[in-house]
Amino acid sequence: MHIDVITCVPKLLESPFNHSILLRAQKKGLLEVVVHDLRDYATNNQKQVDDYAFGGGAGMVLMIEPIAKCINALKEKRQYDEVIYMTPDGKKFHQKTANRLSLLNNLIILCGHYKGVDERVREKFITLELSIGDYVLSGGELAAAVVVDAIGRLIPNVLSDETSALTDSFQDNLLAPPVYTRPAEYEGMKVPEILLSGHEANIQEWRLEQSLKRTQERRPDLLDGYEL
Amino acid sequence: MHIDVITCVPKLLESPFNHSILLRAQKKGLLEVVVHDLRDYATNNQKQVDDYAFGGGAGMVLMIEPIAKCINALKEKRQYDEVIYMTPDGKKFHQKTANRLSLLNNLIILCGHYKGVDERVREKFITLELSIGDYVLSGGELAAAVVVDAIGRLIPNVLSDETSALTDSFQDNLLAPPVYTRPAEYEGMKVPEILLSGHEANIQEWRLEQSLKRTQERRPDLLDGYEL
Repeated sequence: MHIDVITCVPKLLESPFNHSILLRAQKKGLLEVVVHDLRDYATNNQKQVDDYAFGGGAGMVLMIEPIAKCINALKEKRQYDEVIYMTPDGKKFHQKTANRLSLLNNLIILCGHYKGVDERVREKFITLELSIGDYVLSGGELAAAVVVDAIGRLIPNVLSDETSALTDSFQDNLLAPPVYTRPAEYEGMKVPEILLSGHEANIQEWRLEQSLKRTQERRPDLLDGYEL
Repeated sequence: MHIDVITCVPKLLESPFNHSILLRAQKKGLLEVVVHDLRDYATNNQKQVDDYAFGGGAGMVLMIEPIAKCINALKEKRQYDEVIYMTPDGKKFHQKTANRLSLLNNLIILCGHYKGVDERVREKFITLELSIGDYVLSGGELAAAVVVDAIGRLIPNVLSDETSALTDSFQDNLLAPPVYTRPAEYEGMKVPEILLSGHEANIQEWRLEQSLKRTQERRPDLLDGYEL
């Protein structure tokens, strides 16, 4: 999978894509992430990429011309499955969205910053607007990093153990059960005995019970339509 | 505000805290973010911080001992308002959460990684479990960065214009209206004339109409209980 990320603050994204699982995905040749500096596509001598909002008010707006120039240049080299814009008023990003996107080949992710992008960018270029949640960030960069991380780890062979992502929260509409590791006792707090029993069937049953219990307590909404 | 972030992949967080608005907040002395490497608190010679899950199954689990050592060391120096754990089964992080947290003084944010932390860490140390959305990430690092960004920009005097955050999506249960900047016409696409009119009252009215329309179309759930 190839992902082009467009931002006016490329340095913000230096570390998230270069460690842990995303680094592994790139080293294995399964994922390629390229960050593009919007300033390289500025159309005036001041390398300007943002300007005041028409009609006044606080906050800068990213201009259409540099974004258009960048997206058009990228489209000359590749066919894109989606041109995504990260914005708090977009469609809520969900594990199901991550599953779907992880099967695509080429994505552009455009990051807004400050007050966002000129509305005409959204009308002309964007095929999918995504929000990672009901809160406002300084820009779309961290949101883009979140989406790339969520997608990247689902690409087949990125995680060393295929079953690892399948037991995550949300994959089956259930929250994950509690997990424990050594030591078996810490300051009087003991690991549930069943986990030390070695009875795999019983352990699986206990984990499913715990998942159901936790989902019931914390996110009963996920259980609508859940079938045991 | 002082925020301690605990992680087993500190390098992942090098760039997000050191650019744009979070950099500005720190330079102004309004925010201090310190990233702690869990490995510095390992309790054996192998600097081990994770281990296999009791009961088997894919994925590593962060051990309680290094986390306990780190949190206890931090607590000797400061009184914390919240000890937060980032996890997909936590309480959904929302702009209202960001508003509340931005008024506190000292926070610890613990990042899980791989399968998460030993459940006993959650029972013993955590006062608030937060999820940034219904999807699974490689670890809590990006989620922590999202929370710090959302909080950091709300600290008074961090944004240059106080009104800037107040006109964001979610602050008044409405999505933000569309924004436009120069040029007034791009490939036949024109900025709405009212924004060029200079009539401030009309512009405010148009923006409110647009906010309501966009919220109605995209997020009618936000309008429950909204009063004009």
